[in-house]
Amino acid sequence: MSSSLDPNQGGDEKKKTYHKQATGLAWKTVQAHSAESSLKLYGSCFCPFVHRVWISLEHKQLEYEYVEVDVYRKPKLLLDINPRGLVPALRHDDWGCYESTVLMEYLEDLGGSVTLLPKDPKVRAHSRLWSDHINRHIIPIFYRYLQAQEAKDQASFAKELTEQISTLVSAADMTGPFFLGEEMTFVDVQIAPWVIRLEKVLKPYRGWPEPEPGSRWEKWVRAIEGNEAVKNTTSDDQLYLDSYERYAENRPNTSQVREAINSGRGLP
Amino acid sequence: MSSSLDPNQGGDEKKKTYHKQATGLAWKTVQAHSAESSLKLYGSCFCPFVHRVWISLEHKQLEYEYVEVDVYRKPKLLLDINPRGLVPALRHDDWGCYESTVLMEYLEDLGGSVTLLPKDPKVRAHSRLWSDHINRHIIPIFYRYLQAQEAKDQASFAKELTEQISTLVSAADMTGPFFLGEEMTFVDVQIAPWVIRLEKVLKPYRGWPEPEPGSRWEKWVRAIEGNEAVKNTTSDDQLYLDSYERYAENRPNTSQVREAINSGRGLP
Repeated sequence: MSSSLDPNQGGDEKKKTYHKQATGLAWKTVQAHSAESSLKLYGSCFCPFVHRVWISLEHKQLEYEYVEVDVYRKPKLLLDINPRGLVPALRHDDWGCYESTVLMEYLEDLGGSVTLLPKDPKVRAHSRLWSDHINRHIIPIFYRYLQAQEAKDQASFAKELTEQISTLVSAADMTGPFFLGEEMTFVDVQIAPWVIRLEKVLKPYRGWPEPEPGSRWEKWVRAIEGNEAVKNTTSDDQLYLDSYERYAENRPNTSQVREAINSGRGLP
Repeated sequence: MSSSLDPNQGGDEKKKTYHKQATGLAWKTVQAHSAESSLKLYGSCFCPFVHRVWISLEHKQLEYEYVEVDVYRKPKLLLDINPRGLVPALRHDDWGCYESTVLMEYLEDLGGSVTLLPKDPKVRAHSRLWSDHINRHIIPIFYRYLQAQEAKDQASFAKELTEQISTLVSAADMTGPFFLGEEMTFVDVQIAPWVIRLEKVLKPYRGWPEPEPGSRWEKWVRAIEGNEAVKNTTSDDQLYLDSYERYAENRPNTSQVREAINSGRGLP
């Protein structure tokens, strides 16, 4: 591995870079889904947007092939789907698409016995409304916070992230443990990768606290962490610690997400 | 009308502010939908996000009530749906929701004979992917461009807007005239309010050019402009010219959209 040439290390070969292979339970899942399939997920093991689609595929117990993509060496089949080569991307037969939320809706539209969006149009709208909140008001703050280098900015983003999570929690079913009740559904999968990364990334790099004992948020976090599809697509802690060092140091060339956040634009 | 007290005029009573009542064909539609109905659209006549949902309701020929909302004097029934009082909001019986794209999906989920999303999951995903492009890569640039006060910035945003529209056009059906072909569908309704405002706002305030004669984009623009549901929800030119003066001058207190764009955040 010519790690010293990797631009993700900011020209410093002692710096950590992203992993190019899942570890732990996620690696077992990769191996179980390495056979050729007409439904292919192009992903990178550390990427939370990929994680969403991967959790959906596992939760629905669909037949699929997982294809690990090094974001600096993109395969032609991925570039055929999207010239920008963003992951996650799905290829289904000779057709392809991308954007994690769009792909989650696609998997819903395919049908099957396990659904993430219930049938009631009002509950579907409620789920999409709060998914939109996650995408526009939680995720960008997660990155602003992680990339902030000044203590004052970190404190301000920590407060904002806490508030936006509280707003989301106030829209959840009172009993839970998941957003709509006993079962994991769309909103849970939308936020799950960041719930995992609050613990595995924001906690070590920014001192993000454990959920308050006995709170509705704690109940939700534990339900997400304990879900089989989430566990089976999550790598060991070290993978996230290493892969996000570049964000925590706000290193140049880290990713399009980093650049967008730094320039005050929406996510790519 | 105590116009001198309106904060939208930036303390200058000679400045124009937003209209509080539709005009032209849109006013006729308001009058035809003033009767009490279990399905209510809370909207403001100049707002493009409201326009999306309004076009959808008209196109689907649903029974609904249009309730004009002055964004500075929000009715309680709207605040019950969302304490921030954002429009568009829909109330359906005792339930309510907001966010234009979420509401368009809701109207789809209600069923009915006129649909905007076709049945094929791949075409639905394609439609959602390009709606996402409109929401994240076209609309924010529209506002950045309109609010930019320096000629250099205006030129740069004009170029970016042109490029992002070109990318969208390259994803459309080759023949058209609409995005997927002969019929108006989801992506067309998503972009329609801004197509109208390119002509009625960006052209007078920023010199936005007419579509190139004979181009695929011109064909699409004319099809949108000529659609009955679009025409019946569009006011006379003066309404848009007046309502957007505050954006074109980047006046304080204009809207949450203006503030978000100025601060480099995503749309509210």
